[in-house]
Amino acid sequence: MRDVEIHSYERVDELQRNGYRIIQNPDWFCFGIDAVLLSAFARAGRGEKVLDMGTGTGVIPILMSARYPGGAYTGLEIQEPVAEMASRSVSLNELESRIRIVHGDIKEASAIFGRGSFDAVTCNPPYMDTGKGLVNPDSARAIARHEVLCDFEDVAREASACLRSGGRFYMIHRPRRLIDLIVTMRTYRLEPKRMRFVHPYADQEANMVLIEARKDGGVLQRTEAPLIVYQDKGVYTREIAAIYEE
Amino acid sequence: MRDVEIHSYERVDELQRNGYRIIQNPDWFCFGIDAVLLSAFARAGRGEKVLDMGTGTGVIPILMSARYPGGAYTGLEIQEPVAEMASRSVSLNELESRIRIVHGDIKEASAIFGRGSFDAVTCNPPYMDTGKGLVNPDSARAIARHEVLCDFEDVAREASACLRSGGRFYMIHRPRRLIDLIVTMRTYRLEPKRMRFVHPYADQEANMVLIEARKDGGVLQRTEAPLIVYQDKGVYTREIAAIYEE
Repeated sequence: MRDVEIHSYERVDELQRNGYRIIQNPDWFCFGIDAVLLSAFARAGRGEKVLDMGTGTGVIPILMSARYPGGAYTGLEIQEPVAEMASRSVSLNELESRIRIVHGDIKEASAIFGRGSFDAVTCNPPYMDTGKGLVNPDSARAIARHEVLCDFEDVAREASACLRSGGRFYMIHRPRRLIDLIVTMRTYRLEPKRMRFVHPYADQEANMVLIEARKDGGVLQRTEAPLIVYQDKGVYTREIAAIYEE
Repeated sequence: MRDVEIHSYERVDELQRNGYRIIQNPDWFCFGIDAVLLSAFARAGRGEKVLDMGTGTGVIPILMSARYPGGAYTGLEIQEPVAEMASRSVSLNELESRIRIVHGDIKEASAIFGRGSFDAVTCNPPYMDTGKGLVNPDSARAIARHEVLCDFEDVAREASACLRSGGRFYMIHRPRRLIDLIVTMRTYRLEPKRMRFVHPYADQEANMVLIEARKDGGVLQRTEAPLIVYQDKGVYTREIAAIYEE
């Protein structure tokens, strides 16, 4: 563990994986279960190049580098102070050889990195429809959570452009907008191959969906076993506990 | 229960609902869990007109008429001897005032009944991609199960044409082709509002999906709690047992 600068307004959390830790600024945002689930759902082979679009704290490439140490990870983040903080987390874990953080805009990802330059793209995109009506649409939190600076069409277009043919796109989103997501992905040649719905409880509707799409893939897909978060109030299911702890 | 002709090659099964029974010919096909699940997933209000496209034995309108006795049901069946058998089941249960069986082709449904003439359409369509390579593509079973005489685009186009704006389309299908189904439905202004995936066991991928779409509906949809069929080998979950018995 390298010594890096931590500001007084920041906190450092354990990731319970390889002893990795992460720097977060609670005034901006902290990563949630969605990032943890996406990093467990996504896969990276040895030698594969993986781009995380809108990486925020860098939690997804850091968690994936623990699970798939053979991959080469790039995290793209539009907010410069957030990207700088993510870079310090990479250094803190001595992961500079596996993860690089780049300050830049998702909407320009394929221009920054070149078309077809990645084997896989991950994205935990802003979920909310619009930034209109936000009290502070310029806040770091709003930019991370709302479609202030990019919308899902930007994400799908740039993910597809950054991927080689046959490359994989992994994302987590809200099922409420699933039909639009699917239609937009197909428009950009991202064909869903694997979906997994996340339900807070076994008898409740899904509040998240994990999707793996393949660029130029065939039309058949699998809907995996449902992922249930809680077995009782405040008690994770065994699967969720294992995702957090393994 | 009215006295109707039953042939020696036919059998009569209890539907465990209102004392209703159904005539089936095992040499053709017998209804399965998919029809039972669809009839429990679909809804019909008092005075609503409901069309079942490809009704086969008539099991879906018969089960729905027990659950929603205020609806007026029409079953459309392309195979004349099958339609004749379904009509005898309607008579057997003295349901002639609520259900009529019509011999005709799904591809001509809107021409037969008129555009916008139904509040709801149900369909348990042929699942299989194609009739090519079938040993006997003219068999009653192949026509019911395979896309010999119609494909999903025919189903979506005619369901939409038969529905009034705001009317509901209910179907059960295989999730493998979900993306094509969704894209085709949107092409014909059928917007999914409610999806429910059916899993044989809680830890297995879905093998069926129930979808409610609304003609000219908005883009948001809900993915309901997963429907699990078996809790142990050969033992239905309580929910499935209730669907069969209530």
